[in-house]
Amino acid sequence: MPIDPNAPLRITAFDWVPDFARGYVRDLRARWACEEIGLPYATRLISAVDRPEEYYAEQPWGQVPVIEDDGLSIFESGAILLHLGERDERLLPRARVPRARVISWLFAAYNSVEPLLMELGNIDLFAADELWAKLRRPSLLEALGQRLDRLAAALGARDWLADTFSIADIAMVTTLREARDSGLLDSRPRLAAYVERGMSRPAFQAALAAQLSDFKAEPVTA
Amino acid sequence: MPIDPNAPLRITAFDWVPDFARGYVRDLRARWACEEIGLPYATRLISAVDRPEEYYAEQPWGQVPVIEDDGLSIFESGAILLHLGERDERLLPRARVPRARVISWLFAAYNSVEPLLMELGNIDLFAADELWAKLRRPSLLEALGQRLDRLAAALGARDWLADTFSIADIAMVTTLREARDSGLLDSRPRLAAYVERGMSRPAFQAALAAQLSDFKAEPVTA
Repeated sequence: MPIDPNAPLRITAFDWVPDFARGYVRDLRARWACEEIGLPYATRLISAVDRPEEYYAEQPWGQVPVIEDDGLSIFESGAILLHLGERDERLLPRARVPRARVISWLFAAYNSVEPLLMELGNIDLFAADELWAKLRRPSLLEALGQRLDRLAAALGARDWLADTFSIADIAMVTTLREARDSGLLDSRPRLAAYVERGMSRPAFQAALAAQLSDFKAEPVTA
Repeated sequence: MPIDPNAPLRITAFDWVPDFARGYVRDLRARWACEEIGLPYATRLISAVDRPEEYYAEQPWGQVPVIEDDGLSIFESGAILLHLGERDERLLPRARVPRARVISWLFAAYNSVEPLLMELGNIDLFAADELWAKLRRPSLLEALGQRLDRLAAALGARDWLADTFSIADIAMVTTLREARDSGLLDSRPRLAAYVERGMSRPAFQAALAAQLSDFKAEPVTA
């Protein structure tokens, strides 16, 4: 279990979030990467309710995770995954061709797949009763479906986006998991199996359990 | 002028796009990076109207740019910027601390700023007359405004996101340019000046001219 309060690597996480967000906060991605390579990490818990103003100097949007690692402070989970990938070739191959492929797919998850799912998440979690959301949802699902069909075609019969498991899969599986929860993978068995393959890895399960165990039952206010 | 039909580096671009997209297609980012470091590149023009099906094997969404560089094929403009940054420290510093900062901001542009602007672009360019779009637009502008205010605070009085100009600025300036066109920077002079600073660089101007000169007047069909 890589959680170690004395580890030099520290990951920020929230000390409480509403039920719907539990298991989905993005420090999960950093934790998952650490679990894959057995890299010990400590957590630094932040209040999501009373976000300390000074935290914005570390993370411009007040979000988690930030990691501190040997004098570096890195924000944005994509940048953190890349950093952890540079630390261990099991997360990011060293050979030029597969490395380029992994990094292409890493950005694909963050900029070509997740934005549409963010828009859907905003509708379903925060605006479900609003007229605009009801009217917008069908065309958004259609755009998302087309994107996911292309993703399924690109994945083909491979297990992972590059030839071996990588940080690109950590990003894409955690992204697609939200599509799965919305039923978008029901008719896309290849992507459903891909997400299942990722989530059944012991490192994912350990990361998920670790995130959940850090949440308090009630919000802590300053 | 880095365009050279015999250059080993090739960037894909569209041979025609509608007027509203001219100067905004994302090969601009790759061209800009090449111009900054005087790296010659060739273009390979693709039809946006009759997108060749085999192109999806190179770029899962059929988009541009893809770059080919010394046996590598890289898609997603963020991955391409990172690759070009690795080729020249004027785009990505070699020292650990500024490098981590640049990569954090690179992902911030792609995952924390651009997604909201994509949503706005979809409304304004493709759905302006739809009821959902009219109803959604105010709350989206509010969310975008909050994000941009935080970005302005994080930029502070610096000229660039890290201490020196970098790939993060290529990504963020081209992203914010769309916010500027929507009037979102009118009340945010620090960000407006930042975008102006980026767009006034000779390398940006050369990249923009190069993209525009590659468009034919009418779509070319197969």
